[in-house]
Amino acid sequence: LETGEADEIRAAVSTFNAADLAEFIEHASDDEDETGLRLFQSLPREKQAKIFGYIGPDMQLAFARLIPNRELAGIVTNMSADERADFFNILGDNQQHALFQSLASREREDLRRLASFEEGTAGALMTSDYAVISSGMTVASAMDLLRNTAPDKETIYQAYVVGEDHRLLGVISLRNLITSAPNAVVDTLMATGLVSAHTHTDKEEVARLISRYDLLALPITDDDNRLVGIVTYDDAMDVAEAEATEDMHKGATVGRLETGLKTASPFSLYRSRVQWLVILVFANIFTGASIDHFQQTISTHIALLFFMPLLIASGGNAGAQSATLMVRGLATGDVTAKDWGMLLGKDLLVATGLGLTMAAAVSVVGLYKAGPQIATVVAISMIVVVLLGSTIGMLLPFLLDKLKFDPATASMPLITTIADVSGVLIYFTIASVVLGLP
Amino acid sequence: LETGEADEIRAAVSTFNAADLAEFIEHASDDEDETGLRLFQSLPREKQAKIFGYIGPDMQLAFARLIPNRELAGIVTNMSADERADFFNILGDNQQHALFQSLASREREDLRRLASFEEGTAGALMTSDYAVISSGMTVASAMDLLRNTAPDKETIYQAYVVGEDHRLLGVISLRNLITSAPNAVVDTLMATGLVSAHTHTDKEEVARLISRYDLLALPITDDDNRLVGIVTYDDAMDVAEAEATEDMHKGATVGRLETGLKTASPFSLYRSRVQWLVILVFANIFTGASIDHFQQTISTHIALLFFMPLLIASGGNAGAQSATLMVRGLATGDVTAKDWGMLLGKDLLVATGLGLTMAAAVSVVGLYKAGPQIATVVAISMIVVVLLGSTIGMLLPFLLDKLKFDPATASMPLITTIADVSGVLIYFTIASVVLGLP
Repeated sequence: LETGEADEIRAAVSTFNAADLAEFIEHASDDEDETGLRLFQSLPREKQAKIFGYIGPDMQLAFARLIPNRELAGIVTNMSADERADFFNILGDNQQHALFQSLASREREDLRRLASFEEGTAGALMTSDYAVISSGMTVASAMDLLRNTAPDKETIYQAYVVGEDHRLLGVISLRNLITSAPNAVVDTLMATGLVSAHTHTDKEEVARLISRYDLLALPITDDDNRLVGIVTYDDAMDVAEAEATEDMHKGATVGRLETGLKTASPFSLYRSRVQWLVILVFANIFTGASIDHFQQTISTHIALLFFMPLLIASGGNAGAQSATLMVRGLATGDVTAKDWGMLLGKDLLVATGLGLTMAAAVSVVGLYKAGPQIATVVAISMIVVVLLGSTIGMLLPFLLDKLKFDPATASMPLITTIADVSGVLIYFTIASVVLGLP
Repeated sequence: LETGEADEIRAAVSTFNAADLAEFIEHASDDEDETGLRLFQSLPREKQAKIFGYIGPDMQLAFARLIPNRELAGIVTNMSADERADFFNILGDNQQHALFQSLASREREDLRRLASFEEGTAGALMTSDYAVISSGMTVASAMDLLRNTAPDKETIYQAYVVGEDHRLLGVISLRNLITSAPNAVVDTLMATGLVSAHTHTDKEEVARLISRYDLLALPITDDDNRLVGIVTYDDAMDVAEAEATEDMHKGATVGRLETGLKTASPFSLYRSRVQWLVILVFANIFTGASIDHFQQTISTHIALLFFMPLLIASGGNAGAQSATLMVRGLATGDVTAKDWGMLLGKDLLVATGLGLTMAAAVSVVGLYKAGPQIATVVAISMIVVVLLGSTIGMLLPFLLDKLKFDPATASMPLITTIADVSGVLIYFTIASVVLGLP
C-alpha cells in the first residue's frame, strides 16, 4: 500500500463488515505477503479488535508475533472479554505473561477468571461484559446506567437484576424498560424464574437452552447463584454449528479437526482419519474369517456368493439409517434415553416393513438367477439381516450414551462392519439349514 | 381440572416459559385426554398465541378442530405474523377461508402476502412485524414510535430506516438510538451498506448470513429493494438445526421427515427409508456380478476371499470420510465449488498416507495368513482401493453440486456401494496379474 492511498483505503474499508474484512485479511496474508497485516494495522483500534476476534487461531498467533507488544495490548484491551480469554488461552507462557503485564488490573483480573474455565463449558464460552442493574433501581436510573455503560457491553437488550452478593434475581429487557414508567422500580417489572446455566454446564447444553427458549443471552451463575457472565445467541449459533459438524464427522469416523477442511493441513487430516480406518481393517478380519468358516458351503453352492454383498450391505444400510436417526435425535434433544423402549418398538415395526419390501425385491432376482431354493434363502436372510442391522443401529447409540460415551461414536462404518460380520453368519447359516448342508 | 383450582393453576402457569408449556401441553394431549387442551384454553390470549407458535403442526391442526372458531381467530390474531402464515399454510381450503373471514382486513392482507411465498425461501420465513422508521426522523421521534409500536413488533432492537416507496436505506440499533442526542436525525446515525436478502433467497443462505455477521435480524427486500420483512436470529437457529438434521439424514439415505423421530409415525419413517434401501439392493447386484466374474480366480485361490470384505470395506470407509468432510464443508460455506482442485490435491496426499498405513497393517495379516504373494496382492490393492474410494468420496459431492443436486445426496451407503463394486474389480484384477491367472 502506498502511503498516499492510505486514507482513501481506510475510508473505503470502514464501510466493510468486520467478518468480511477478517476473511479478506486472512486471504491476503501468507508467509510472503504482508498486505493483510498492513491493512489490519492501518485500521482504527476498535475495528482491529473486532476483526481479531474473527480471524482463526493460527492467524491470531502469526499476527501476535508480527505486531509490536504495545499495539497488541491496545487491540486486546478492546476485544470482547470472551474472545480475549480465548486468545489468551492459545498463547504460550511467555506471551501470556507479556500480555498480562500490559493490561490494566481490572481487565487482568477478569481475564484470569475467564481463562480459568475448562474448555467446552459455559464458563469458557461466556463473556463478563454483561449489563447489570441493582435491585431497587428505578427504570430511569437503570436506563441511565445502560446508556452510560453501553459501549463496553456485549448486549444491553437484556439487563440482569442482581441483589446482595451479586446474586441473580431476574432479567429485564430494554424493550420493557423503554415502555415502562420512569419511576417504576425494576424489581416489579423484571421476569423471575428465568432460564440460566452454571459455569460448568456443557456448552452444547447452553446452545440448546438458548435455541429452545429463543434467548438473546443466557445468564451464567456460579455455585452460589451469583451472576458471573452471559452467553449470547451468536456464540450459541457457532457452538451449534461446530457441534453438528463434529457429529457428522464422527458419524463417518473422522476425528476432531481444529480448523475447517479448507485450512486443515494434510497431516492433521491424516491424523483425524487414520485411527478408525486401521481399527476397522482389523474388525473386518472377522467378516473374512466368517466367510472362511463357510468355505465348504460356498464351494458347494457358488451361486450364494453372488447375493452375499447385497445382503450384508442391506443390513449395514438399514443400520446406518437407524443409527443416524437416533444419534441426531439424541443430539437435538428430540429423543432422550428414557424413550428407548418406545423407539425400539417403532424401529422393529419399520424394519419389518423394510425387510419385507427388500426381500420381495431380492427374491425376484433370486428366482431369476438361482432358482426357488436359493431365492428362499436370500429372502429370509434379507428380513433377518435388515431387522438385526436396524436394531443394532438403533440400540448402539443408546448404549453408548448410557455408558457416558458420545452416541455419535456409533458411526456408519462401525455399524456397517458389525452388520457385515453378522450378515455373513446369518446368511450362510440359513443357507446351510435350508439347503441341508452340514 | 376442577373449576375451583383454575385460578391457582393459572397463576402458577403464568410463570412458566411458553416453550415449556407447549411441551407440557403436547404431552398432556392425546385422543383420550383433554387436559392439555383445557389447560391451553384457560390461559390468557397472548400466552396462547405464543404457545400455539411452539406446538407442532399436527397438534396445531388437532387444536384447530377442537377450539371454537371465534376463540381460534383471537389466538391467531395474536400470533406473530410469520408463525401465523405457517399455520395458515397447513390448513385445508375450508379452514383457510373460515380463518380468513375472521381476521381484520390489515391482518388478512398481511397473511395473504406472507403465505404466498414459496416454502424454503426468505419470504416464507420472514415476519412483517418489523420496526420501521422514516428517513428524516429525529432520534426522539423514532424512540417514541418504537415505544408505541413495541408490543406488535418481533424486535425493536434493530429499526430499519426506509425512504420513499418503503425503500430500505439503512438500519439503526436501539442501543445506538438511546445513546444518541434526541434531536439528531436518524439518517446521520444509521448504518448503510447493510447485509440484506431477497424474498426468494434460500432460507439456508439467510441462516448463514445471520450467523456469519452475528445479526439480530436480517432485512428482506423485494425486487425493487423495498423492505418487506425481517428474519430474526431465533428463526435462523431453527433453520440451521433443521438443515443439519436433514443433511445428516441424507448422508444415511434417510429422506425428508416432517416431524421429529419421536413423533414420526412408523409409516412416515418407512417411507423416508425404503426408497434408497431398495435402490441400493439393486446397485449391490453389480458387486455380486463382479465376484461372479472372478469365480475361477476365487476357486483357484480361495484364500483371496478372506481379504475381500476388509479391502472393499476400507475403500468405502475412506470414501465415507472424504464425502462427509466435503458435504459438510460445502454446507457451512467453509469450502466452495472453486476449491475443488486444491482439495483434490490435498485429498490425494492424505489418501496416499492412509493407504500406505492400512497396506502396512493388512500385509502383516496377509503374510501370516496367506504368504508373501497374496500379502503383496492385498497390500497393493489396499493402496489403490483407498485412493480410489477417497477420491470418489471427495469428487461426488462437488459433481452433484455442479449439477444442481444437493451434495448431501453423496450418502455413505451410496459411496460404500460404489467402493464395493470397484474394490472387487480392483482386487481380483490385481490378483490375476500378480498371481499370473488368466
